[in-house]
Amino acid sequence: MGKGNLVVGQSGGPTVVINSSLSGVIQEAMAQSAVGEIYGMYRGIRGLLKEEFIDLRRQPAGVVEGLRHTPGAALGTVRYKLSEADYDRILDVLKKHNIRYLHYIGGNDSSDTSWQLARLAASSGYELHVVAVPKTVDNDLVHTDHCPGYPSAARFVAMATRDTGRDTEAMGPESPVKILEVMGRNTGWLTAAAALARQEEGDPPHLVYVPERPVSVEQLLQDVERCYREREYVVIAMSEGAQESAGKTLGEAFAPKEVDTFGHRMKGGVSDFVATLLSGKLGLKVRLDKPNYLQRSLMVCASAVDLEEAFRVGKEAVKQAVGGCAEGIVTLVRAPGPGYHCSLEVVSLAEVANKEKMLPVEFMNEAGNYPTAAFLDYARPLVGALAPPYVRLRRATA
Amino acid sequence: MGKGNLVVGQSGGPTVVINSSLSGVIQEAMAQSAVGEIYGMYRGIRGLLKEEFIDLRRQPAGVVEGLRHTPGAALGTVRYKLSEADYDRILDVLKKHNIRYLHYIGGNDSSDTSWQLARLAASSGYELHVVAVPKTVDNDLVHTDHCPGYPSAARFVAMATRDTGRDTEAMGPESPVKILEVMGRNTGWLTAAAALARQEEGDPPHLVYVPERPVSVEQLLQDVERCYREREYVVIAMSEGAQESAGKTLGEAFAPKEVDTFGHRMKGGVSDFVATLLSGKLGLKVRLDKPNYLQRSLMVCASAVDLEEAFRVGKEAVKQAVGGCAEGIVTLVRAPGPGYHCSLEVVSLAEVANKEKMLPVEFMNEAGNYPTAAFLDYARPLVGALAPPYVRLRRATA
Repeated sequence: MGKGNLVVGQSGGPTVVINSSLSGVIQEAMAQSAVGEIYGMYRGIRGLLKEEFIDLRRQPAGVVEGLRHTPGAALGTVRYKLSEADYDRILDVLKKHNIRYLHYIGGNDSSDTSWQLARLAASSGYELHVVAVPKTVDNDLVHTDHCPGYPSAARFVAMATRDTGRDTEAMGPESPVKILEVMGRNTGWLTAAAALARQEEGDPPHLVYVPERPVSVEQLLQDVERCYREREYVVIAMSEGAQESAGKTLGEAFAPKEVDTFGHRMKGGVSDFVATLLSGKLGLKVRLDKPNYLQRSLMVCASAVDLEEAFRVGKEAVKQAVGGCAEGIVTLVRAPGPGYHCSLEVVSLAEVANKEKMLPVEFMNEAGNYPTAAFLDYARPLVGALAPPYVRLRRATA
Repeated sequence: MGKGNLVVGQSGGPTVVINSSLSGVIQEAMAQSAVGEIYGMYRGIRGLLKEEFIDLRRQPAGVVEGLRHTPGAALGTVRYKLSEADYDRILDVLKKHNIRYLHYIGGNDSSDTSWQLARLAASSGYELHVVAVPKTVDNDLVHTDHCPGYPSAARFVAMATRDTGRDTEAMGPESPVKILEVMGRNTGWLTAAAALARQEEGDPPHLVYVPERPVSVEQLLQDVERCYREREYVVIAMSEGAQESAGKTLGEAFAPKEVDTFGHRMKGGVSDFVATLLSGKLGLKVRLDKPNYLQRSLMVCASAVDLEEAFRVGKEAVKQAVGGCAEGIVTLVRAPGPGYHCSLEVVSLAEVANKEKMLPVEFMNEAGNYPTAAFLDYARPLVGALAPPYVRLRRATA
C-alpha cells in the first residue's frame, strides 16, 4: 500500500495519561514513512463524522512532547454510540481523506466503536488498519494485565486513603468515621487500591467495599462497629457502585425520597446513603471525601510506570497498524518473575469489545471487606512506592 | 528561672504541615538547656486536663524528623472550649509537672484557649510562658501575613482546579459545568487560590465565589450562562460557605426539604444546592468535586514554603518562650521587595484570639466573582509554581 493518512481520537472519560498515549501515537506516526497526514478527531468519533480534524503534524514546538504531562483529553472526548445510520458517512469521510490508519484511545465502549469501524471497512473492501489504544481508570478491559490510566488513578486513591486516614486518626472519636468514595463503575479495581495505603498493621483503610462483593446492611454495621471498638476511628474506601445485593445500591433505603424544587429525585452517592445509615444506626459522626473527577485528573499523583506505558502503548498501536495489522487492541502482558515488566501484544477487538473484567474472587478476602495479598502484589508495581514512610509518635506516657 | 518542663498540643483541624510545626517545637526544645521534659498533650487541651502526656524527648530515632513530612496531627487533636470550671484542674496539672512553657498549635479557637491559659497563670502568680503556634488552612488569623497550613491547602486547590479543569474542558458540552467545593469556613482565602490555576486567558477557573461576596441566584445564573456561551464549559470554585445574602446559603432554597429515615434533615453542601439550581434552570449537566478533607491532608500537594515556615514558626515559639516572652502568638511578617521572605514576630494573644480576618475587598473584582491581580501577587509565592506548564493543541483544522 502507498502512503496513507492516519486519524486518532480520544473517547470516554479522560485520565492523567490519555494524552501520553496520544503523544505516543503522534510521535510514532511522525517516525513512520508510510504515514502521510496525522489528523486528530475533535471530540472523538463525532469529529470524524463532522470532518472536524486537528492537524497533529503541524503543532507548535513542544506541544506534542508536552502532552505527556498534561491531564485531560487534548483532542476533546465524547460518549457517542455509533449506529449503522452513521456507516455511509464514515466511509465517505475515510475515503475522502485517504485515511488508512485509525487509532481510538478509550475503554469498553470505545473498543466497540473500533470494532464496528474495522468490520465496516472489511465488509466494504476499504483497506483500513484499526488498532485501538486501551484507556480506563476502571481497569475493566479483558485480555490485558491492566489498562493505562488505572495505575495513576489507583495511586491517587492510595495516597488519598493514606492522607485522609491520618486526618481521621488525628480527629479521633469526635468524628471517627471517614468514607472515601471511589470511582470504577461496576468494578472494584480502583477501590481495592486503597489498601496500598497501609504501611503497618492497623493503618487505614480498615474496610474496603467493592461492587463485586455486595454487603448487607447488618454486616456493614457489624464491620464498622468492630473497627471502631478496636481503634476509635474507621476509614472506609467505598466503590461508587457498592451494593447490598445485586442491583441494589448500599444504604439507598435510608436516603431521603423527596424530589428537589424541579421535580428531580435527588440521588446522592452511595457514601451519602451509608453516612446516613451509620450516623443513624451507630450514632457515629461520619465525614465524606468525594474527590470524584480528581481521581482521574490530578497529575501530581500520576504513576511513573503509567505515564511511560501509556506512551509506549500509543506508539505500539501505530507500529502495528503500519506493520499490517488489520484490527486489534494493544494489550499489556506482564512477564513472570520478581521484577516488574510488561510487554505489548495485540488481540482482536472482537475479544475485548463489550466485555467487562471484574475483580477476581482471589483478590478479595473471604469476608468481602478487604483486598488480599495477591491483589497487593498485582497492584503495587503499577502504583509505585508511597514514599517517604510516615511516622507515628510512640504513645508510652511520659 | 531554673529548668522547667514544656508541653505542646495540637488543636482543631489537621493540616499537612501541623506536624512540621510540632517537629520544630520539639527540635528547638531539645536544643534549649532551660527546657527539661518535653510533653505532648494527647488530643489537645483535654490531654492536659486528663494528664495524658506523650514523652516527646524519648521517641524512636527518625520520628521527630519524620513528622516534617507526615500529615495529620501526630498528637491527636480536639475541639474543646475551655471553661472556668477547668481552671483549678489546669493549674494543678501545670504545677504538678512543673510545666513552664506551653505551646498550642492551632487557629482561632486555639488562640483563645492559649489566651485563657496565659491569663489564668498570670492571675494566679504561676510563671508560665504561653507562646502559640499559628495553624489553619482557612488563613483567617489576624496580624499575620498568612497562616501555616494555608499555602499547602491553597496549592491543593490550585492544582485540583487546573486538573479537573482540563477534565471538564475535555468533556465539553456533554457535561459542561464543574463545581469544585472548597473549605474555608466563613472566609474565601482558600477558594480564591483556585485562580492560581490559570495559565492563560480563558483557562479555568471561570468563576470564583467566596462568602465575603454574596451572589444572588439571578447573578449566578447570568455568570454561568455567559461563561458557557463563551467556551462551552464552565469551571467554578465555590466556597463551602458561599452565600446569596448574609447568612443565607447559596441555592439552599432549591434543595430537597425532606428528612431521612432517621428524621434528620439531609443537608447537602452548597455545591449540591447550586448543582440542582443550575441543572434545573439552565438545563446544563453539572458535575461536582468535593475533596473535603483531602484539601488539608494530601501531602503530595504540600507547598515547600509552607513546610519550611511551619517548622520555623514552631522553633520560634520555643525560642520566644525560653527567652522570657510571657504570652503571644508567632506571626509571619512579609518583607517588602520583589523576592519573597517572611520574618517572624510575636503579638499578644489578646490581639488575635476570637478575631477573624476576611478576604479584603481589594482581593476580589468588582463583580465579586473572581480574585484580583493583587490577590494573585499575595498568594503566588506561598503556593509556588505549578510546573511544568500544560499544553493545548492548536485547533487550526487540518
